[in-house]
Amino acid sequence: MSWQFKLTSSMRVSPLRTLTTRPNSRLLLRPTGLSAGRFSAWSESTMTQTSASRTLSTQSKKCLNLDNMNQNIRAAKYAVRGELAVKAETYRQRLTEGDKSLPFDSVIFANIGNPQQLDQKPITFFRQVLSLVENPLLLENQDALKNSFGYKQDVIDRAQALLANVQSVGAYSHSQGAPGIRKSVAKFIEERDGFSANPDDLFLTAGASSGVSSLLSVICNDSNAGVLVPIPQYPLYTATLALLNAHCVPYYLDEQKAWGTDVNAIKKSIETAKSQNINVRSIAVINPGNPTGASLSPDDIKAVLDIAAQEHLVVIADEVYQTNVFTGEFVSFKKRLRQLQQEHPGKYDDVELVSLHSTSKGMVGECGHRGGYFELVGFDPEVQAQIYKLVSIGLCPPVVAQCLLETMVNPPREGEPSFELYQKEYNGIRDGLHKRALALFNAFQRMEGVEIQEPQGAMYLFPTINLPAKAVEAAKSEGRAADEFYCLAMLDATGVCVVPGSGFGQKENTLHFRTTFLAPGTDWVERIVKFHSEFMSKYGDGNAKL
Amino acid sequence: MSWQFKLTSSMRVSPLRTLTTRPNSRLLLRPTGLSAGRFSAWSESTMTQTSASRTLSTQSKKCLNLDNMNQNIRAAKYAVRGELAVKAETYRQRLTEGDKSLPFDSVIFANIGNPQQLDQKPITFFRQVLSLVENPLLLENQDALKNSFGYKQDVIDRAQALLANVQSVGAYSHSQGAPGIRKSVAKFIEERDGFSANPDDLFLTAGASSGVSSLLSVICNDSNAGVLVPIPQYPLYTATLALLNAHCVPYYLDEQKAWGTDVNAIKKSIETAKSQNINVRSIAVINPGNPTGASLSPDDIKAVLDIAAQEHLVVIADEVYQTNVFTGEFVSFKKRLRQLQQEHPGKYDDVELVSLHSTSKGMVGECGHRGGYFELVGFDPEVQAQIYKLVSIGLCPPVVAQCLLETMVNPPREGEPSFELYQKEYNGIRDGLHKRALALFNAFQRMEGVEIQEPQGAMYLFPTINLPAKAVEAAKSEGRAADEFYCLAMLDATGVCVVPGSGFGQKENTLHFRTTFLAPGTDWVERIVKFHSEFMSKYGDGNAKL
Repeated sequence: MSWQFKLTSSMRVSPLRTLTTRPNSRLLLRPTGLSAGRFSAWSESTMTQTSASRTLSTQSKKCLNLDNMNQNIRAAKYAVRGELAVKAETYRQRLTEGDKSLPFDSVIFANIGNPQQLDQKPITFFRQVLSLVENPLLLENQDALKNSFGYKQDVIDRAQALLANVQSVGAYSHSQGAPGIRKSVAKFIEERDGFSANPDDLFLTAGASSGVSSLLSVICNDSNAGVLVPIPQYPLYTATLALLNAHCVPYYLDEQKAWGTDVNAIKKSIETAKSQNINVRSIAVINPGNPTGASLSPDDIKAVLDIAAQEHLVVIADEVYQTNVFTGEFVSFKKRLRQLQQEHPGKYDDVELVSLHSTSKGMVGECGHRGGYFELVGFDPEVQAQIYKLVSIGLCPPVVAQCLLETMVNPPREGEPSFELYQKEYNGIRDGLHKRALALFNAFQRMEGVEIQEPQGAMYLFPTINLPAKAVEAAKSEGRAADEFYCLAMLDATGVCVVPGSGFGQKENTLHFRTTFLAPGTDWVERIVKFHSEFMSKYGDGNAKL
Repeated sequence: MSWQFKLTSSMRVSPLRTLTTRPNSRLLLRPTGLSAGRFSAWSESTMTQTSASRTLSTQSKKCLNLDNMNQNIRAAKYAVRGELAVKAETYRQRLTEGDKSLPFDSVIFANIGNPQQLDQKPITFFRQVLSLVENPLLLENQDALKNSFGYKQDVIDRAQALLANVQSVGAYSHSQGAPGIRKSVAKFIEERDGFSANPDDLFLTAGASSGVSSLLSVICNDSNAGVLVPIPQYPLYTATLALLNAHCVPYYLDEQKAWGTDVNAIKKSIETAKSQNINVRSIAVINPGNPTGASLSPDDIKAVLDIAAQEHLVVIADEVYQTNVFTGEFVSFKKRLRQLQQEHPGKYDDVELVSLHSTSKGMVGECGHRGGYFELVGFDPEVQAQIYKLVSIGLCPPVVAQCLLETMVNPPREGEPSFELYQKEYNGIRDGLHKRALALFNAFQRMEGVEIQEPQGAMYLFPTINLPAKAVEAAKSEGRAADEFYCLAMLDATGVCVVPGSGFGQKENTLHFRTTFLAPGTDWVERIVKFHSEFMSKYGDGNAKL
């Protein structure tokens, strides 16, 4: 589990910085195993360009070309929607158009946590309420709503309350989100944690991604700024840091301890970064983990908060999978922080914490609505006012998504007319996810050269794959990382689209892939098993290790 | 109409840069009249801080304070949701709570183009369709939809077509927006311009603001990059450039020519910027104008395209008010460019143009939904692929807003069941806007010391106010710009919230304010007239000029 840093010149999370001459190029930090060429499945070689077009581009009289556009954007990597996803989409289109030449009859998008693309049905209560806020004229015939469409009184009441709050979903709201909706979110947090929450500290967002982007941009004050990011990670973090020209300071999660945090690894990362004059300002934690599925214990959380208190780091707690927990109970960073503040007066007073949540995950799965929030805890009020100004430039998060968020944090309660159906649907989704996670887990356990941790939470499994040397060589001859080669072969053979581990980061000399367990049925799991067996036979040489 | 540049040290669009020591501070460009202290009504003195809290903040052990957070954010100004708007909201709350001590009984938010906050009713067809995509279960009883709620067959057909396209509004779509919806947008552009449009060149967005942000971030490749911005302007542009640490290169619009573009002013701005080693990469044009309401002629547009072709500038055409035109006809930059490319083969081939549109403005006014798109014209395919990657990091624009956009660009046609009501509602909104614009225009004409151009388009009037010397002195003694002082006095006396000209930029020794003409009725117009008369009497000294 040991890891070390290697110094390379002008290196960040991306290799592209090395291609450009920048006045402020310096010695930067890069962990071994985070070799830039492997960090993402989105490699430039897979874009539309060829060396001929590159020459043309550079000679064109246009203002913008690849070499003179913002190089931070060029450097950013985002594998989740990269080459594999694009190829999967072309396969899907070919199947739609009646193409019979492919060796599969459906494409399974297991690359992204997008439940409703995979036929997960939305929760009825949520959508009934949203239909009414979209067309309040429906409220003028409540009898017909009830008799012809089965709308219950609590649906009608909720829609009316939301409309009283936002006036119209077509009007800009307060830039932090409608005040009444923030009150509901605060109440939800209080019930979850047993500690108070202030609506003024809540910022509703267009999904958690836009919140992460705003927060990292506030934290990263210059090109020496660094943010601790777990590896493997959801690549939003490295991508956003690349856009901000700031340092990703990676800390490796401990695969052998179910992908938990490793305090010593974090401390060593900080030390090494400091020795490189990187100003480490923040630590991002994804709990439950993406792509790992890990769920942190109260002790793990305390360990992170201890480091934050000691090093004056802003804690970014990405808690969008907080209801996707199979084993144990979710404990929020906010709750743990408040407990520690009670137990040790003074010691944790200066900790700055932001907790993010979303309507896209959990049993809600409403990705397309782009809803979410973040809560600021312990922030300087002056900084908070600047964050308000920053978000006000974008005016406001989508108001329909704000209404959806309200129904998520304030669902039907026992005894209310919509409760029974809500509970049935919610539990059905939860149990289905757990069942498919276990089916996938069992399949991976059966597969040669695959190592897998028991699923704890989130929507993903992240198995280790030990590939034959011949496969690694074949990948190299195509100029690809071995895991990318494997995932492309899987897509071509099965129509199942997963994301190579290099898209999230992984220790040197290890290979993984991430798959969701959202797709219905188990047919696609068997497709993976069959493909893997054939792949191993094709490249096998008796030595299964990479 | 002459203007000149003045050199000041380490100066950009904001004064705050001067407060921080940055390694790369240089001599930068600032036009006279763009004095930073006046550039925005959002001044730091109006925030929660006091000098005591500042000291505290700096001494705190927290990671983030005002002085060590990202200073680009601190430097950004956004007056539309600044101090005046915050104060107006507190007045509104006091009135809601029954406070009788205020000299007015309602607050009029004339500071922001937010029609549905001001009781503009949404267009029925749009919202009926959206209610069905939110709850497709409603489609299972089409008889009840028709008989109990008056839904027409074309509403049902459209909802089904949209659902076939996006699968579920709860699923992430393609990062550029659902392909079928982009096809509709392309068709709309073709019908508008008479020239082809390619769905692959369209990027659906969460309102135009997020599109502007993405595009400016691609264009601004380093801290020498500059973008030509009209003054006065919608402050999104200066704010975003401040966030990107890039140069705003202002060019003044010609108030005496109905706020049209002035080619010589643009050329002189470019020359001066070049002499300061600023790399001028792009020109932003807002047509119809915000805050000016100006509508550009085909000749004005040609003049801008000529400069862009000559100087290799990316043209950012902010055309969100394209249907808000009272006089003449809207001509898009795309149409004019294609015409010129036909007339002068070769000459305009390298022009890069992006045109932005939105669901927030026009007669749609659906601000809260956060919908819009931009079209790229003539961009390098490699750069376009990078823009795709950039937007993919944020996953996708809100899918409900994409559906709304589709109904906006593809409304009911003559002969279709929903056409009659649609047309009646659309024309009612259009005529109401025009009527109120004229009422406001007439009122301003009657007011002492106020100069006003006849309204041409958009949702705003931007009168010049000539204030008595005593008022200017009174403002100075409060540390405020005179227009800010005037607007605050107006809010305190009338409950009408407008934005001072300094929030948009204005020539030195001129004062303005921006008001929308969205609020229903004319009572509030009379409130302004009465306030103005009393203000002039209070501070009058026979010399009305500033």
